[in-house]
Amino acid sequence: MCSPGVRVPKGVAPDCFRLEEAPAPAAGAGQVLIRVLWLSCDPAMRGWIAEGPNYSEPVPLGGVMRSFTLGRVEASDHPDYPVGVYVLGRQGWQNWAISDGSDIDRIVDPEQGPLSANLHLFGMTGLTAYLGLSDVGRPKPGETVVVSTAAGAVGALVGQIAGILGCRTVGITGSPEKVADCLDRYGYDAALNYKDYETAEALADACPAGVDIYYDMTAGWISDAVMGQINLGARVVLVGTMALPSGPPPVGPRYSRQMLVKRATMTGFLVLDHFDRLEEAVTALAAWYREGRLQYREDVTEGLERAPLALMTLLDGSNRGKVLVKLAE
Amino acid sequence: MCSPGVRVPKGVAPDCFRLEEAPAPAAGAGQVLIRVLWLSCDPAMRGWIAEGPNYSEPVPLGGVMRSFTLGRVEASDHPDYPVGVYVLGRQGWQNWAISDGSDIDRIVDPEQGPLSANLHLFGMTGLTAYLGLSDVGRPKPGETVVVSTAAGAVGALVGQIAGILGCRTVGITGSPEKVADCLDRYGYDAALNYKDYETAEALADACPAGVDIYYDMTAGWISDAVMGQINLGARVVLVGTMALPSGPPPVGPRYSRQMLVKRATMTGFLVLDHFDRLEEAVTALAAWYREGRLQYREDVTEGLERAPLALMTLLDGSNRGKVLVKLAE
Repeated sequence: MCSPGVRVPKGVAPDCFRLEEAPAPAAGAGQVLIRVLWLSCDPAMRGWIAEGPNYSEPVPLGGVMRSFTLGRVEASDHPDYPVGVYVLGRQGWQNWAISDGSDIDRIVDPEQGPLSANLHLFGMTGLTAYLGLSDVGRPKPGETVVVSTAAGAVGALVGQIAGILGCRTVGITGSPEKVADCLDRYGYDAALNYKDYETAEALADACPAGVDIYYDMTAGWISDAVMGQINLGARVVLVGTMALPSGPPPVGPRYSRQMLVKRATMTGFLVLDHFDRLEEAVTALAAWYREGRLQYREDVTEGLERAPLALMTLLDGSNRGKVLVKLAE
Repeated sequence: MCSPGVRVPKGVAPDCFRLEEAPAPAAGAGQVLIRVLWLSCDPAMRGWIAEGPNYSEPVPLGGVMRSFTLGRVEASDHPDYPVGVYVLGRQGWQNWAISDGSDIDRIVDPEQGPLSANLHLFGMTGLTAYLGLSDVGRPKPGETVVVSTAAGAVGALVGQIAGILGCRTVGITGSPEKVADCLDRYGYDAALNYKDYETAEALADACPAGVDIYYDMTAGWISDAVMGQINLGARVVLVGTMALPSGPPPVGPRYSRQMLVKRATMTGFLVLDHFDRLEEAVTALAAWYREGRLQYREDVTEGLERAPLALMTLLDGSNRGKVLVKLAE
């Protein structure tokens, strides 16, 4: 029950993907042709290609792998997207894409920061970190915030934002290198390698005043140690379940009495519900970024054919930063 | 894992209690002498006498069993509590009690309704049902509300209030007689005997539009069937854990992915945190009561020496209504 185990879902491997070549498509009436420059690799992709209930439709067998993307409009018959604008969208794993605008989320300003940052800091990652922590976690100065996958793209932001807001921050992550990133780069007050601890003692030592907010991206056995330390009125922001296998729910300790005794709240948070607040989050994050208070790390892989390998580094936890695939300048 | 099993906590039995006789106490300076008329038996008592973390201090071995009580002041040297007033308090399992007022919660109006109703409808029970459902559950007309221990003192009220508010109500309870009470007396749209079903199918049939609010007083395996049926944005009001054994958390299915996919919220609710809103709740409940829209059932046992037996009927689920012990008129 408490073994780290294999976190890549059974059956998800590079050979699940096939590279297909086809003539470059042309934009028709009301359409744009997009040169995809960057692909984002996200934990949610695991759910999109796994069996079982998910908040999104699964990617059909034989379909283009779904992905958040940043691209440039190269040809246009759409008044909202003229040639030369950069767009965030969901063009998927392909070098060129035709769009009628329905899979474009917004135009991005290339002056705001590095283009790729729109796929994390100024995008879903930033929104997930900012809203999940502020709206659901409701941090108060002096509270203790624990973050699982603390050195990941979302987690690193959560830890830094919580620190900016005056909280004690404790990160749980999966390698000595990531522990070092947590402490040296992201400013966590304490950081633990979950592969090193078999009991909750290390966590308890890192949280002498207990846990007020748990920003949970793993669930499962990694969370068990945290749930034992929660304070009265704790808020659990449930953002991911990376430590749970696909398929039917595995068994683990039932937290119900702890949740009741502590009058805790657990809330499933999905950023897709909160797109309308992206500008608010980006405004706050951009201000902190300009002040030099937000650090991030990117793991960049080049070439469409290597996208499956990049995704694997995210799913097996060997990445150190936001996993991106660069397709073109 | 899914067996109803024995719900009385190991070691809690009538012979855990001892009847002691002593000379009638006398009120000293600043004190009142209270004739205890009614004892309330509540699920929380299980936690008060069980090992393990609880939101209240355990009752010490050899101490007077803690209990909510209704009594009459028989002698007084306290300006707030003159002779003859009826008081709700925490005088415990005794016929006579001395109080300095610190364990008196409020003076009750004997004209408002039956005296004993202050121990449920106009007391903690009513407050638990009213606030847990309205504040945490936030019911909207047409939503489906599932209640576990649906025919119990709190559950019966939750079901009736949810019905008054225009929800579809589905009760889970533990005997054919309680199912009949749910349907005939408390107006549930559907009711299930959990001892009859081994799968979630019966519940799914009773909730064709899924579950929007789960008012959960059992947790454990009874809740497993409900968690599989929750809708997007579901609210789980966690009020009790009657189906969990005392001691370390047992194992069961991990709900994390379901909570995330459904963006559900689970909140531990303890009425002790909300005493300040008792008058608000009693005002709402008293209005519905006067309109004849709230039914309740009392299981009355007479005599202090039979209090442990009365408690057992609550803990083993054989009660049909609010369990009370009557000590005097």
